[in-house]
Amino acid sequence: MGPHPAVAAIRLAVRRVLHDILNEQNPPRFAPSAPHERPPAPLVLVACSGGADSMALASALAFEAPKLGIRAGGITVDHGLQAGSDQRAAEVVQRLRRLGLDPVEAVAVTVGRAGGPEAAARDARYAALDAAVERHGARAVLLGHTRDDQAETVLLGLARGSGIRSLSGMAAVSGVDGRYRRPFLHIDRQTARTACMVQSLPVWDDPHNTDPAYTRSRLRHEGLPALEKALGKGVVEALARTAQLSRDDADALDAWASQAEATVRDEAGRLECAKLHELPPAVRRRILRRAAIDAGAPAGSLFARHIEEVDRLITGWRGQGAINLPGRVVAQRQGGRLVIRQG
Amino acid sequence: MGPHPAVAAIRLAVRRVLHDILNEQNPPRFAPSAPHERPPAPLVLVACSGGADSMALASALAFEAPKLGIRAGGITVDHGLQAGSDQRAAEVVQRLRRLGLDPVEAVAVTVGRAGGPEAAARDARYAALDAAVERHGARAVLLGHTRDDQAETVLLGLARGSGIRSLSGMAAVSGVDGRYRRPFLHIDRQTARTACMVQSLPVWDDPHNTDPAYTRSRLRHEGLPALEKALGKGVVEALARTAQLSRDDADALDAWASQAEATVRDEAGRLECAKLHELPPAVRRRILRRAAIDAGAPAGSLFARHIEEVDRLITGWRGQGAINLPGRVVAQRQGGRLVIRQG
Repeated sequence: MGPHPAVAAIRLAVRRVLHDILNEQNPPRFAPSAPHERPPAPLVLVACSGGADSMALASALAFEAPKLGIRAGGITVDHGLQAGSDQRAAEVVQRLRRLGLDPVEAVAVTVGRAGGPEAAARDARYAALDAAVERHGARAVLLGHTRDDQAETVLLGLARGSGIRSLSGMAAVSGVDGRYRRPFLHIDRQTARTACMVQSLPVWDDPHNTDPAYTRSRLRHEGLPALEKALGKGVVEALARTAQLSRDDADALDAWASQAEATVRDEAGRLECAKLHELPPAVRRRILRRAAIDAGAPAGSLFARHIEEVDRLITGWRGQGAINLPGRVVAQRQGGRLVIRQG
Repeated sequence: MGPHPAVAAIRLAVRRVLHDILNEQNPPRFAPSAPHERPPAPLVLVACSGGADSMALASALAFEAPKLGIRAGGITVDHGLQAGSDQRAAEVVQRLRRLGLDPVEAVAVTVGRAGGPEAAARDARYAALDAAVERHGARAVLLGHTRDDQAETVLLGLARGSGIRSLSGMAAVSGVDGRYRRPFLHIDRQTARTACMVQSLPVWDDPHNTDPAYTRSRLRHEGLPALEKALGKGVVEALARTAQLSRDDADALDAWASQAEATVRDEAGRLECAKLHELPPAVRRRILRRAAIDAGAPAGSLFARHIEEVDRLITGWRGQGAINLPGRVVAQRQGGRLVIRQG
């Protein structure tokens, strides 16, 4: 008898990602290689909070990695935001060791305040994971984000109203050299919970996940259920699919904009308004946005309405004056050229 | 003292659209034209249910049209779905006449069942409006969809999970020769209500708008408020902005796919897999989708997962067999060519 379907599902998801990693590491060779050429077994880490998603991920990694000649380790980050978080991290370390992972370590971080509590915790966490990758020479870190997390991320992006890039959610592969991998983006949270239960793995619920002070928690416990009630049970899957489609679309349009940008500059490298005018609005606005960022406008403060206003220098020219953008960047039209620079 | 801000806002929105219509009708001439060349005053109709949105729209049209030499008329569609709907339509006709609109008429339609109650009512309504345009020789029909309606439409599209075209909501200009115009897509529902109130215009609430049997009604009264509670009050505006950005992006990618399609066919017009492989996934999948529709697959039954499966004939070729698509369309790879045709 095979494993429970939930366990089979999480293992398959992890196996696929490990295969990807091996294929990138060792491109297939048609000629047999001498034994001494074999590289050392690659190390893959799992980032584990002790919650159901990442405990399920850790269990699948522990099961699949040895079969593929991969060393499996684990990292738990102690954010120091609740009393006793250090004890909890130590307990997660024990649980990961019991799964057979090695090396395993807890890393304590100090969470700042920049960008709000959720962003600050995330920044501190990824900095710690990056450091762990370097320290251990790991090939990759697996992250336990599920399809439900992806759906929430899409809705958070939707609330920004800043276009399809912000609808594209989390990438299956991200970070320097693709070090972060999310094998569970197509696995739902319930499957991860079930996999823990049938494997008798103890799990914790992160108190932040149910704290209504956190936007994501409100979305999870109120926003998404209400949306499902209105639109039907397929909403989470539809949001996750929207993420993938939006990501591909945004990538293609970014590539187009990169390529088109070279064709709309004069010999001196200035943007020519007449040539910009001929481009589709979606491509033109991406070029304008990039030019504003290159001139020093902070990407996070540059909204769609800023770019629309700059775009009107091209498409609705009636002699308007210079436009002020975030980061003391100024856009103005001069003799058929669009000049965007820090003032 | 000028009009109330809500009244000023709806009039400005209508004035802009009427200007657009006039500019399209009479391209600006630099040479004066003889009096006998002047075309007859164009007629613009408003589609009015008697609800606040379309009554506000009717009042703004009645105010602005005469100043621009435009004739303003109105149509109300009696869907025959409630007892007494004919009397109600007759009352709307009276209200529109009192605003000074002429011609005004009520049109009774029979609502079928195809596609569900909302789709069937919409189909019957647009067929009646199309017929009214032809009958009266009208230049355009104004529709009272607000920013709130647009936000709901984006969420309905999101629930389909079929990509950015379905996130692009309703167009400001649509229909044959751009006959349908939506001046209120940037106006919120509350502004329309306020404009009716301060102008002492009686309005009806459409019982469908509060009937939980209708998906849109559930979204309006439960889904969107819960989302606003989780994500903040800017959600409606963010959704409406997402619609515009998605529309521009989808238009650009469709244009790219049209252009690229010609380059990936061999002399016999067959799709070459190697050339398709070089395209960005977003462009390639649009070409595949169009090829399936051209072969007879009904667009409404063709989902993202179908196209992904066809795409794997290109990107994940391992000798797999023919793929069955809706409408008895079959896709298969033959000698480096992708053949999509009705079986």
